[in-house]
Amino acid sequence: MSAHLCIIGVGLIGGSLGLALRQGVGKSGFCHEIIGWGRHPENLKAAVECGAVDRYEVDIAKAVSVADIIFIATPLATFKTIFSLIQPHVKVDTVITDAGSAKACVIRDAESCFGKVPTHLVPGHPIAGNEKSGVGAAFPELYRDRRVILTPVASTQRQAIDIVRQMWESAGAKVEEMDIHHHDDILAATSHLPHMLAFGLVDSLARNGDVDEIFRYAAGGFRDFTRIASSDPVMWRDICVHNREAILKALHRYRKDLEELNEAIKNTDAETLQTIFSRAKAARDKFCF
Amino acid sequence: MSAHLCIIGVGLIGGSLGLALRQGVGKSGFCHEIIGWGRHPENLKAAVECGAVDRYEVDIAKAVSVADIIFIATPLATFKTIFSLIQPHVKVDTVITDAGSAKACVIRDAESCFGKVPTHLVPGHPIAGNEKSGVGAAFPELYRDRRVILTPVASTQRQAIDIVRQMWESAGAKVEEMDIHHHDDILAATSHLPHMLAFGLVDSLARNGDVDEIFRYAAGGFRDFTRIASSDPVMWRDICVHNREAILKALHRYRKDLEELNEAIKNTDAETLQTIFSRAKAARDKFCF
Repeated sequence: MSAHLCIIGVGLIGGSLGLALRQGVGKSGFCHEIIGWGRHPENLKAAVECGAVDRYEVDIAKAVSVADIIFIATPLATFKTIFSLIQPHVKVDTVITDAGSAKACVIRDAESCFGKVPTHLVPGHPIAGNEKSGVGAAFPELYRDRRVILTPVASTQRQAIDIVRQMWESAGAKVEEMDIHHHDDILAATSHLPHMLAFGLVDSLARNGDVDEIFRYAAGGFRDFTRIASSDPVMWRDICVHNREAILKALHRYRKDLEELNEAIKNTDAETLQTIFSRAKAARDKFCF
Repeated sequence: MSAHLCIIGVGLIGGSLGLALRQGVGKSGFCHEIIGWGRHPENLKAAVECGAVDRYEVDIAKAVSVADIIFIATPLATFKTIFSLIQPHVKVDTVITDAGSAKACVIRDAESCFGKVPTHLVPGHPIAGNEKSGVGAAFPELYRDRRVILTPVASTQRQAIDIVRQMWESAGAKVEEMDIHHHDDILAATSHLPHMLAFGLVDSLARNGDVDEIFRYAAGGFRDFTRIASSDPVMWRDICVHNREAILKALHRYRKDLEELNEAIKNTDAETLQTIFSRAKAARDKFCF
């Protein structure tokens, strides 16, 4: 395939895809041209300079009207606006995909803007990223060997799914398909909940004590544990709003389990404590290395 | 000083101190001889082989009777037994110190075994370690530029404090003194609480879902966040029991703050969410790099 790819939002996620496709991290030759669009021309200029896009447009109509694939890599809160802005200009067979961390909301937003869920819309989510943001943080290896979850619905065209799959494989990623609500539950548990706990901890410590002193005695474990609390607040605000139900479900379960742990400490119940810690260690040691 | 140092418990913590002193990480010449004691001769043999101790004793009386300094690096639950075992054999001016993660309990245990708090007991806590354990995980650089907090009480002899300070500086560490209860509060917040949250999260996920699938989609942030859940369950059971009050206080505050965050998500209160996340990010970015 030799496609025109339009990247909407050229930050860490969008920029890294462009770099990966241009530097041939995975299968090469996917793209004829990569066009960037965003709100800040200076950022788009930087994206051209570092090779994440070939050129940019400040007029979104021009950016998307030539595109065979549109990749939306902006915060979830912008999707409704983006869909509305591009809807009059996309070709009938242009494939639209995205990198949003929640997926049911993407289908809802698309449906409300396009009148129905476009059959060429393939919601996607690369399980990659870090606490940094902006095109300056982008790097071509971000997606190498990482999973990308696609969550097509019943009406999604198989050909559109295959094109998006090809795009991600060209960036070095491993592509899987998953039910949209199942995706939102799994990600709430493995990503959104840990972010809530880390943000919550750092804020709680910062609000409840001599913060200079507290951080002074924080060791390596604390640094690792709280790394994700350096993530972009706006992006995470949006994830909370857009994956609200699944996150609340995960938080509810966690808070119940934390109450049990609290009780065990309160009752000096050494046996229960050791059981919980041993189970956790066994699970983590089995899956993480 | 040219001292005989006895290390009680030659694992990651005890073994790394021996290696640091022998390999001259900090100021050199602190030790004339390092004697190891522990329950497992095969572990002590390994400690001699890797150079963490010069020799070992299986009889604790022999191990401590020649010592000028005794360094206790066993789990907190063993301290009462250790104090009782060594009490009849230590020389009157032998300095006793330790690496326990909580400090008020060390004073309590020593008082109950020795009749009063020994004036040569200098409770200490190196803010170093990782999720691994055993002498095989020991390495000489563990304490380089790390803080060691000493928590002497009013009756502690200044000379004893200075000797322990010298020992840690010889291992490359930076030594500070702190009030014992203040230490326990600070460590509950920066170390014990995060460990509870990480153990709690991994156990909660492992108990509440298809664990294979959940961990399959866990990204780098999850790995970092849960690294401390691989820590030694017995050591952490003991920390919970021995720093119970301070941990409960920290957990109570955290659970209250987490409830606020939960409410904000429930109410789709985007402003509060962004405020919490921004405050957390600012605090972490300021202190961690």
